[in-house]
Amino acid sequence: MNKPAKTAITPTRQQDYPEWYQQVIKGADLAENSPVRGCMVIKPWGYALWENMQRVLDKMFKDTGHQNAYFPLFIPMSFLEKEAQHVEGFAKECAVVTHHRLEPDGKGGLRPAGPLEEPLIVRPTSETIIGACYAKWIQSYRDLPILINQWANVVRWEMRTRLFLRTAEFLWQEGHTAHATAEEAMEETRKMLEVYADFAERFMAVPVIKGEKTAGERFPGAVITYCIEAMMQDRKALQAGTSHFLGQNFSKAQEIKFQSQSGETEFAWTTSWGVSTRLIGALIMTHADDDGLVLPPRLAPSHVVIMPIYRDDTQRAEVLAYCKSLRGELMLQRLDDQTIRVDIDDRDLRGGEKKWYHVKRGVPIRLEVGPKDIANQAVFMARRDTGESKSVPRVELVETIGAILEDMQNNLLKRATAMRDENTVTITNEQDFRSFFKSENEENSPINGGFAKCHFVSEDAVKPLLDELKVTIRCIPLDGGTTPGKCFLTGKDAAQMAIFAKAY
Amino acid sequence: MNKPAKTAITPTRQQDYPEWYQQVIKGADLAENSPVRGCMVIKPWGYALWENMQRVLDKMFKDTGHQNAYFPLFIPMSFLEKEAQHVEGFAKECAVVTHHRLEPDGKGGLRPAGPLEEPLIVRPTSETIIGACYAKWIQSYRDLPILINQWANVVRWEMRTRLFLRTAEFLWQEGHTAHATAEEAMEETRKMLEVYADFAERFMAVPVIKGEKTAGERFPGAVITYCIEAMMQDRKALQAGTSHFLGQNFSKAQEIKFQSQSGETEFAWTTSWGVSTRLIGALIMTHADDDGLVLPPRLAPSHVVIMPIYRDDTQRAEVLAYCKSLRGELMLQRLDDQTIRVDIDDRDLRGGEKKWYHVKRGVPIRLEVGPKDIANQAVFMARRDTGESKSVPRVELVETIGAILEDMQNNLLKRATAMRDENTVTITNEQDFRSFFKSENEENSPINGGFAKCHFVSEDAVKPLLDELKVTIRCIPLDGGTTPGKCFLTGKDAAQMAIFAKAY
Repeated sequence: MNKPAKTAITPTRQQDYPEWYQQVIKGADLAENSPVRGCMVIKPWGYALWENMQRVLDKMFKDTGHQNAYFPLFIPMSFLEKEAQHVEGFAKECAVVTHHRLEPDGKGGLRPAGPLEEPLIVRPTSETIIGACYAKWIQSYRDLPILINQWANVVRWEMRTRLFLRTAEFLWQEGHTAHATAEEAMEETRKMLEVYADFAERFMAVPVIKGEKTAGERFPGAVITYCIEAMMQDRKALQAGTSHFLGQNFSKAQEIKFQSQSGETEFAWTTSWGVSTRLIGALIMTHADDDGLVLPPRLAPSHVVIMPIYRDDTQRAEVLAYCKSLRGELMLQRLDDQTIRVDIDDRDLRGGEKKWYHVKRGVPIRLEVGPKDIANQAVFMARRDTGESKSVPRVELVETIGAILEDMQNNLLKRATAMRDENTVTITNEQDFRSFFKSENEENSPINGGFAKCHFVSEDAVKPLLDELKVTIRCIPLDGGTTPGKCFLTGKDAAQMAIFAKAY
Repeated sequence: MNKPAKTAITPTRQQDYPEWYQQVIKGADLAENSPVRGCMVIKPWGYALWENMQRVLDKMFKDTGHQNAYFPLFIPMSFLEKEAQHVEGFAKECAVVTHHRLEPDGKGGLRPAGPLEEPLIVRPTSETIIGACYAKWIQSYRDLPILINQWANVVRWEMRTRLFLRTAEFLWQEGHTAHATAEEAMEETRKMLEVYADFAERFMAVPVIKGEKTAGERFPGAVITYCIEAMMQDRKALQAGTSHFLGQNFSKAQEIKFQSQSGETEFAWTTSWGVSTRLIGALIMTHADDDGLVLPPRLAPSHVVIMPIYRDDTQRAEVLAYCKSLRGELMLQRLDDQTIRVDIDDRDLRGGEKKWYHVKRGVPIRLEVGPKDIANQAVFMARRDTGESKSVPRVELVETIGAILEDMQNNLLKRATAMRDENTVTITNEQDFRSFFKSENEENSPINGGFAKCHFVSEDAVKPLLDELKVTIRCIPLDGGTTPGKCFLTGKDAAQMAIFAKAY
């Protein structure tokens, strides 16, 4: 009998993927469920990762001409009612504020009091409240475009929640822009999709497919929804970001009008686009392994952890001094424009315990330094991505640290891309489709097919089969989605090809 | 008859201070009231100022050993009930979520549906929800201290709101720490007070008095509340930040316990501390003048605006090229560790309109560049703080820009400190106290006395007089507050001296 290799995370991905995911988060101390139903606590290591994502994205938004602003948390119920599809999409999962104070309930407790004239919705997204402001701000074509982004918390009352992937409250950014022409709004929508794809690949090391959502999967109220789709290690798809061309749907519902250059009154063309803390879920499920989190260096809160090893106080002084001077040298090096972030972990823990602590947290490079290493002017180095470990001359380490981290970043993207490509197939008939998505053990097996590229005549035609197999249309890829072919189900001529997959 | 000088802001501070404040905000396009009662929209220029404040404060928090995290927006009603004084303090101004979806009301509209078993409060502050997490996280003295900060939005249902100073929703940071000993918690409380004071003086150029709140003015549930108090130009006080020593009040209410080194179970000692977007109100009311906002350079979203001046396309090309190369040179200069932020405003606006646009927004330095300036290798420069304007050789400007901005920063602090000191008096009897705070026209006059330093026997003894005059005890200053003296009201021996003032 083959004894499975001991892993830091139990169960492994093969044994129980969803539970592995929870245990990776716990092992890395990224987040936990809070006492408030469906809301998570993002713990310091998880929040530091989010801060790094924010810093990079924020710069990308500003470099593309956007400014940040902040709009109210609450949306009057009547605002939500204005756009029919929009309210349809969000009414079933809204936190509703109905009172503005508490009073004694006469039984030693409290009860809500001060009923509001109009209930307020905790924003699930801010098109309606921001649109109301834009309607006031925009008079003339000279006021356009408006290019604003907001970093905020939003609430969607999900019944089944999962840390980072689906929580009642989550953190995100939402861009909201208004333009004088459809072309300009469309250009903005596509530009932000490119920003998201670039961020996912270059910083998260998560390869994504850019595509357009079918009508049934569009954002409520959008004319076109573009998305980036990534494949997780269980071969399910995860939508990692969306960019919506809203046409004039919201501007008509909210009277966002302007006087054009020729003096006519026209409705503005609007867009919105967002990514959320869900990205952290995507990052985990793309790179983590059976020993825990694996962080892409460009987003890692810490690049290097140094673990001093010593037996007594004399050794301790010597080793710590060496570690500090090593840290100083490493911090002068760079990964792109980032300085290298180095921590020394001198806590009083057994060596094994300390090592696994950092393995589970995904720190890219671990260094061990003891008296022998010092004698050799060397350092014992372990890479989190490959597990490779070896003694390295100190001078060499300092000189190459930036290159090593960049290599790890590239390696993670390459590995994830290979995994995705190996699990992406072109399917031309129903039988192959069925067997691709068939799974013995739906809940726990990591076998969820993968990405199936299939031509199809229409969303309606394939819906019954998709519902049966719990498969969804992820997107019509921008690359190749509109080349004609034969429908995999009906055999008829089909004008479009989509990525089909099980999904989060 | 003396015609008043024309000002960019109407009314002036002298004419109507509260309305002047609103008009400065409008003129600088910092924020506006939203369609949602009591909630503001923070517009890009105001939000950029907040981002700069955040960046500096966040670094100060991290440099003092704190980490960021994120806790839920919602607090179960029962959590709030646990600490008696705390709930007493916040129950009257809570947004209460009672339902989790909307359903058709049968009349074409919507109504709240899906009642929650337990109402949720939108956090007015997070001691109770964070405390519940700490109770879970802390087992042993080894888990202490916990030093966490959160950047978040909070809601307090204020009936009378004023942009930045008092709004139903506002943005802030709240630090929450837990310690093994009272001494350590007290040290933390005082350390963060120092951080706030340092930030206010060094970055906002707002001089503050550090002090302790009297029992009647304490944070609900705190043992000691420290604060920083600033004097606005109408001589009213504004509390700009608070740091609370919570003792074991919250840890006992929430069972935040730990096993001490000697093996006994003890309650942790906790602190909390926060500053909010109210700081923007303090900054405005300290530095703005009758022409609008004046920004301290260390926090200004833009340090320098260059306005190209030309008559035709040939001139335009030449002037713009000069402006761009000037911008490039200026951006290589520094104010402390910040690179100089420079914008070119080439919008098609009349010169006067453009100038006043930037004056009202408080940009520290305005530069005008036309063909004549280019011929002379010079630049026309105007300082926002002094109004001084003159032609400066280009080389000199580039070499001295950092020093000029630093001088402006120092000048603003000096001016504000002088204003405060001129309006701070020591008062030893009731009559002087009354005449100091007497005002002909309470609502609109800028004459609101100032800071009165008075010895007093007790809060209770002076309360009737304070209520009558609408004066409050701001704080017992750390510097000199406990030297004995005679009570200004009763003439009796008094162990303490406080700053008395009208306040925001």
